[in-house]
This record gives sequence, structure tokens and C-alpha cells, in this order.
Amino acid sequence: MVKALPAIENHLYEQMAGKIHQLIQHGTLRPGDRVPSVRRLSEQHDVSVATVLQAYMLLEDRGLIEAKPQSGYYVRARFLTQPPEPAKTEPTLEACCVTVDELVTRVVRAMRNPDIVPLGAGTPDPNLFPNQKLARVLSAVARRAGPAANIYDVPPGSIELRRQVARRSLDWGCSLSSEEFVTTNGCMEALNICLRAVAKPGDTIAVESPAFFGLLQAIETLGMKALEISSYPRDGMCLDALAYALRRHKVAAVAINPNFQNPLGSCMPDEKKKALVELLAKKEIPLIEDDLFGDLFFGERRPKVAKAFDKKGLVLLCGSVSKSLAPGYRVGWTSPGRFQTQVERLKHATSCACPVVTQLAVAEFLHNGGYDHHVRSVRRAYAQQVHCVSDAIGKYFPAGTKVTRPQGGYLLWVEFPKDVNALKLHTEALEQKVSVIPGPVFSPKQGYKNFIRVSCGQRWSERIDHALLAVGRLANKQLGR
Amino acid sequence: MVKALPAIENHLYEQMAGKIHQLIQHGTLRPGDRVPSVRRLSEQHDVSVATVLQAYMLLEDRGLIEAKPQSGYYVRARFLTQPPEPAKTEPTLEACCVTVDELVTRVVRAMRNPDIVPLGAGTPDPNLFPNQKLARVLSAVARRAGPAANIYDVPPGSIELRRQVARRSLDWGCSLSSEEFVTTNGCMEALNICLRAVAKPGDTIAVESPAFFGLLQAIETLGMKALEISSYPRDGMCLDALAYALRRHKVAAVAINPNFQNPLGSCMPDEKKKALVELLAKKEIPLIEDDLFGDLFFGERRPKVAKAFDKKGLVLLCGSVSKSLAPGYRVGWTSPGRFQTQVERLKHATSCACPVVTQLAVAEFLHNGGYDHHVRSVRRAYAQQVHCVSDAIGKYFPAGTKVTRPQGGYLLWVEFPKDVNALKLHTEALEQKVSVIPGPVFSPKQGYKNFIRVSCGQRWSERIDHALLAVGRLANKQLGR
Repeated sequence: MVKALPAIENHLYEQMAGKIHQLIQHGTLRPGDRVPSVRRLSEQHDVSVATVLQAYMLLEDRGLIEAKPQSGYYVRARFLTQPPEPAKTEPTLEACCVTVDELVTRVVRAMRNPDIVPLGAGTPDPNLFPNQKLARVLSAVARRAGPAANIYDVPPGSIELRRQVARRSLDWGCSLSSEEFVTTNGCMEALNICLRAVAKPGDTIAVESPAFFGLLQAIETLGMKALEISSYPRDGMCLDALAYALRRHKVAAVAINPNFQNPLGSCMPDEKKKALVELLAKKEIPLIEDDLFGDLFFGERRPKVAKAFDKKGLVLLCGSVSKSLAPGYRVGWTSPGRFQTQVERLKHATSCACPVVTQLAVAEFLHNGGYDHHVRSVRRAYAQQVHCVSDAIGKYFPAGTKVTRPQGGYLLWVEFPKDVNALKLHTEALEQKVSVIPGPVFSPKQGYKNFIRVSCGQRWSERIDHALLAVGRLANKQLGR
Repeated sequence: MVKALPAIENHLYEQMAGKIHQLIQHGTLRPGDRVPSVRRLSEQHDVSVATVLQAYMLLEDRGLIEAKPQSGYYVRARFLTQPPEPAKTEPTLEACCVTVDELVTRVVRAMRNPDIVPLGAGTPDPNLFPNQKLARVLSAVARRAGPAANIYDVPPGSIELRRQVARRSLDWGCSLSSEEFVTTNGCMEALNICLRAVAKPGDTIAVESPAFFGLLQAIETLGMKALEISSYPRDGMCLDALAYALRRHKVAAVAINPNFQNPLGSCMPDEKKKALVELLAKKEIPLIEDDLFGDLFFGERRPKVAKAFDKKGLVLLCGSVSKSLAPGYRVGWTSPGRFQTQVERLKHATSCACPVVTQLAVAEFLHNGGYDHHVRSVRRAYAQQVHCVSDAIGKYFPAGTKVTRPQGGYLLWVEFPKDVNALKLHTEALEQKVSVIPGPVFSPKQGYKNFIRVSCGQRWSERIDHALLAVGRLANKQLGR
């Protein structure tokens, strides 16, 4: 076991902002209400005026409050126009082969074209990241490593990286050691290897409905089947529905994305994660947990991982820095519990080893690069971008459109009125140089035909505003409006 | 199609050395014979004395000739003591499940321990590579790319790298365009993806006997079957045996390593490659070609790839710079012919994208880094190392031991007398901190029980000499000598 430092405390002003945020969310403070004055809050909570000001600036960034000159801060009116949320999903309970791969390929092709406004692709804006600093760190580690950078770093992979990730596991509610990790080429390789470690072709994997299309693609290309489980746009997979499904189907593994699910943005409450892990432990069913978005919370504290409640080594946790620091570095990992040996073997058989320099650079950045400071600013940016895009959707999309209210990540799941055909919309939008992802790629049987996923990974700009206007017009046109 | 420069001509002295080398190999010049004097050869071939001297120094490096003071150059006596070559392999013709994965894991674990002399692992000595220069190139491209280094470089991957590799394809006897490549995390990922593009679980893949254990591991973990085909230690897979096997078995694909096969070191003559490609074209069977060692020829010119004879897009060529430039960078590629779309999709579903900076660094090195110059020195080093290890095997290993005479790469395939148990030898050698790879991992049914593979990837040193002595003693002990 590696000894690690305690999790870094959230700043006081963030805690304060989180409390006000909750008051707004729960409706205690309503749109148009004045929030407590800076002086009053400072006295009440015995903190400095500067701290309260910082908290209010953060809430302003998130689009929750606005300053009125000479008058103070008010809850913003946006909640009056914000579209309602989609309902709990109700997929049919039937394990089936997946057929999204071809459609995903079309969507991915559009990612390579810089002329297309990327509201579909999950790639974050590279300008959000400390690229120059990363390049300096990379140069330094490559020079320092010398010949040691030029070896086969066979599984489990870089000890430096595993040490840093193990240290961070305290922030996730775990205390994993470096020996309990295997490094991978991003989270996507980790998911593939974990699927292969616990299931074989023909086996059934229970997934959220809707589910991340990359997971569905992996399930499809590995010849496995997917079983969609009803899910809540706020709390994630419905455990009653899962328990029911497990009684009726032979399920080899459950693969979910508890924190800021792709595409729902749902965050499973920690107690629910515990219940999920216990449910699966009883039946000895492995849980593949994709925590790619876990660091990107908008609220007060990082949600735990389901792995935190794992007593039997049945949870295979997968993660990476692709959404928070370095999409282009492809540095990921898994902590696969009792499947460590199988995962190491499969990693070797699949891609032999990970590159040394990129692993070292990320390890060094996690160690000395101010990752926490950096991720705080990324979180603020995503929160603001999600807010701006939600607002634009409220303004431009057809009446009756519903949209999720994620508490982290940068993805929005949009439900149009029934008569909007998302596949057609996707094609029409591409013709206007805008990419959105049609709902059917998030479902093994290509359901969600009137849904799209909108990525808020790009910095808000007029270009994006116009793109959303264009999508809204196309959707309205389909409805004859 | 990308226009590219003509292949760089081999230096004159290398051509000259190649000719003398052939005379020695064919027995025209025999051990102890004096080779033509420098002056005479210079006059006969109308080249400068300096060129002839360079050629002789190269042959000296390769351990083929030696200078005697005041007397000239002589063919070295090593051929008198060099062990004979193993015979053509004769596996039983039966498609079967592979079971090498667990054994490979044991072997790979030993790779991570720096106290163990790595005569088993295929990792080349990192000191053979221009590490500082590579680090500088990496720094430069990372700084220059800025935010562009931090995107998802989705398949087919870096255009810069694909362009450089396409240019090089002229050296391989092809003229591929950048559009005909997909970049991968090393050759191992390329092999996996190509296998999955052309075959499914349960399908049979015909392989050389013995075959690269990584390929067998991939076949095993993908749930496919392997069919071993009789192979020659010099010329590779026996085409008659293959044709016979194809009449009797349903074969989904053939996967071979025509240039400097791992572990045999065999190099399939170009005409035979052509015949192989034509044989498979008639039956519409895909050929997965692993050309990992192709640049590491000891002779006069680079052997062609089988892909050079592909008229139907049935050859999936895989390669990387892991053995010639940057083992730690994991930069590889495939040119999968008519399977381009499937391969792009599978790459995306498997690991999403390759890291940007490592691809850019290798592209830049191929473009401006003097790759040809560098690889010439690596080839010389490998040739010399193979010579030294062969010599030591002749000296230390039991009488009756046979060893291959590869014309490229850095691997030796050693056949002990029948009573030597290679698995036992592997374990005993590990106890003495020496790693060799036991023959059984090169065969789906764990045959080759009295064989080992010895890697000559490390610079010759006393440490390696002692390690070989130790292995020889252990083998002699097993024989009661």
C-alpha cells in the first residue's frame, strides 16, 4: 500500500458557493430573489468579505446569479425559460446485439474536419488545457529519462504514473495502491480490456439506457450483447430495474458511468453506488466502472467512485486524464480488483505496453504540475459552457424540447418533440457544418430517435451560438414550424 | 497518392560487403581463406581503396573476416565451430486453441526486473537508439503543435506520420498513399486489429511454426484457433505445406512474419512472397503481414514486403519503429488494403486514437532525423551482436546444439539435444538471473520443448557472455554432462 497525502480540501469559497447553489436548486432561492448581502453572509458564516465575493463570482460564472448595480446579487431568471428535464428512460428489457458501429464511424469522421462546429464530438476545447506547460513537462521528463524512455514499459506500466494515480484514489473515496493499477492507452482501451477480462463473445453486458456509444461499440466489436437498463437523468441507472433484469437474464457484467454519465450527465448518489455494489456482490457479478468525468463536478465535492464500496474486488474502475488535462496524450488506467492478472495479460496481448514519455509527463504533472488548480479552472469553464448552451437550447430549440441539467461533465442530452428525426437532423446539420450526435448511437437497438447529445466541450462563442440556432431552425422545420 | 522520393541507394561499400558476404555464405570463400587484397578489389571493381576498406571493416564488424597484421584479411574460423542449423519444422496439421498466455505472462514479468540479463525479452538495448535526439525532436514538435497536440487524433491517425510511412513504402517495394494507412499503438495493436478485421472467434489462423508468441497470445485471447504450418529456418513458411493445409482446413487468414521471422530469423525470398500472395489471392484469403523487423537486414538490400505483390487488397501490412528507433514510443501502423474501413472502426472502438506527440515525433524523425543513417548503425550493431552470441553458443552450449543463422533482426532460435527441457531450463536460468524464452511459447500446443529463443538485442558485454555460459552449463547439467 502506498502512503498518500490526504485529499486536498476544497477552498472555502467553493464550499460557500456550493451551499448557495443548493439553495437555488432546491428552490429555497428562486429566480429573481436577492441572495444574502455579502456583508451579512460574511458575518453569519464568520468568513471574510473577500471569500463571499469569490463565492458569488463563482456562482456568477456558473450563470446562477447576476449582479445588479447598487443593489446586490440576484438569482438569474434563466430557470424560468430553461427547458424541462427528460423523464426516466424505459427501454425494453431484451439483451441484443449492438449495431451502432457504422453510425459511430460517420460521426467520428466529422470530428476530423475543422470546418465543422463540434457540438457532437466529445473532444474538449484544447485551449482549456495548459498545453505549453504540458509540453515543457514532456520535454523535461523525456530528457531526464534518457534511454529509460526507450524501453517496453510492459504491464502493469509506469510505476511513476501508477503511484500518482493511487495517491489520487483517496479523492475518490478509495485507498488503492500502485500495485492495483494497470496503465492503458486512455479509458477506451481500459474499458475494452476490462470487458474482455470478465466476459466472452455472446455474453450479456447490462448498460445504462442511453449508454456511451464507445462502450456500445466495444460490446459490438467484441461480439457481446447489451441489455439496456432504465435510468434516471439525475441519479443514473435504476437499481430496481437492474435487480429485476438480473433475475430474468444471465448477465456477465454491468458496465456503467456513475459520475456524469455520457450522455445523460447523471450522477449516481454515493449511497446508491454502495447499494449497486452490494447488489452485484451478492450475485458475484463484476462491475465495470467508467469514471472518466469524475473530476469534473460542478458542486462542492468530488463524487465517490463505486469502487470505494467494493469489498470483493469485483469492481473494475477505469479512468484517464483525457477530459481534464490531456486528450491528446491517451493516458488512462484501470484498477481491476481481482481481475488484475487477466487485465495485465490482456493489455500485453492487445498493445504490448504504453508509451513511456506520455505516462511520465502525466505522472509528473499530477505530482508537481498543479493538477488540482488546473482542474478547478476546467470545471468552471465546463459549468459555464453547459450553462450557455442550455440557455441557447431554451431560446432556439422547438417548444416542448427537454434537456438534462448535469451537475458535472460537459454533455447535454436533448429530447425533441416526437416528430423530430435525430438521424435526419444530424445529416442536415452536417450539411450546415454543424455536428451533433444523434440519439440512436447511444442505444444498441438505435432507439432515442428524437434525441441528440450536444457537447459543451468548446469555449462559448458566437460560432457556437449560431450553430445552435441553425440546429434549432432545422428541428423547427422538421416540425413544420 | 503521395509523391515520394526514390528509395535512398545503398552505399557502395555496403554493396561490396554484401557480395563478399555472399561468397562466404555460399562457401566460395571458406574459413581461413584470404579475401582479395584491398588494392586488387579496388582495381577489379573500379572503386576507391577507401570504399573497399570500408567494406572490409563492415565485414569485420559482422564477424565474418579478420585482419592479420602484415598479411591482409581472412575469412574467420568461426564457421568451423558454428553449430549447424535446425531443420525444417514439421508440426502436426491440426487447428487448435492456443494456451500460451499464462506462460508468456511469466516471461514478460521477468522483463521488468533490471537484475535479470534479458536474453529472452525482445526489447532492444535502449542505448542503441538516439535517445537525446529523439527527446529533442519530441520537445520541438510538442512545443510547435501547441493546442493541436491536445486533441483526439481519431483514426486513421496523424497525417504527418502516415505521409512519412507512405514515403518509406517505396523502400518496401510498394507505393502506398497516406490514405492507405491507419496508425496504431505499436505493431502489436495493429496485429490485433487486423486479426479482428478478418476473422472472428472460433476461426482458424494459419501461422508459421514456430510463431511469434505475441501473435499466438492475440489469437488465444481473441478466441481464435491457430494452425501451424511447416517452416524453413532460412526461407520461412513452406508454401507446399500451406497449400496442402488450405485444401484440408477452412482458414480465415494467414498471419506471418516474412522478413526475419520471430523466432526463426528466416527471410522469405521475394519470389516466394509473390507466390504466397498469389496462392492466397486465388482463394480470397487475407494475409496479415508483420514486417516489424524488415528494416533490420544484414545483407545488401532491404527485403520487399509481401504487400508489394498484393493486387487484390488482401494483404494487411503491419509495422512499427519499435525495433529500429523507438521501442518506448509505441508508434506503429497498418496498411490494411480492402479492410481499411473495418480497421479504422476497430481502432476507434479499441483505443479511440493514438497519442499525438509520439506520432509527430516519429514522423519528424523519419522526415528530418536521419533515420536511414541511424538504422544503418543499428543494423551493424545487431549483426555484430548476433555474431557474438552465436559464437558463445557454439562455445558454451552442449554438443549437438543447433542454431539459426538469421540474415537480419536480432533473434536466434536454438535447438538443444532432445533431453534438454526448455521450460525447466527457463526456470533454472531465471534463478541465476538470466532470462531466455522457452520454445513452448512459440507453439499453440506448446511444442518445441527442447528449444529456446535467445535475443541478441543487447550490446555484447561480459555480463552477456557469462549469462550464456550459465545457460550452457545448465543445459549440459540436464544432459548429465
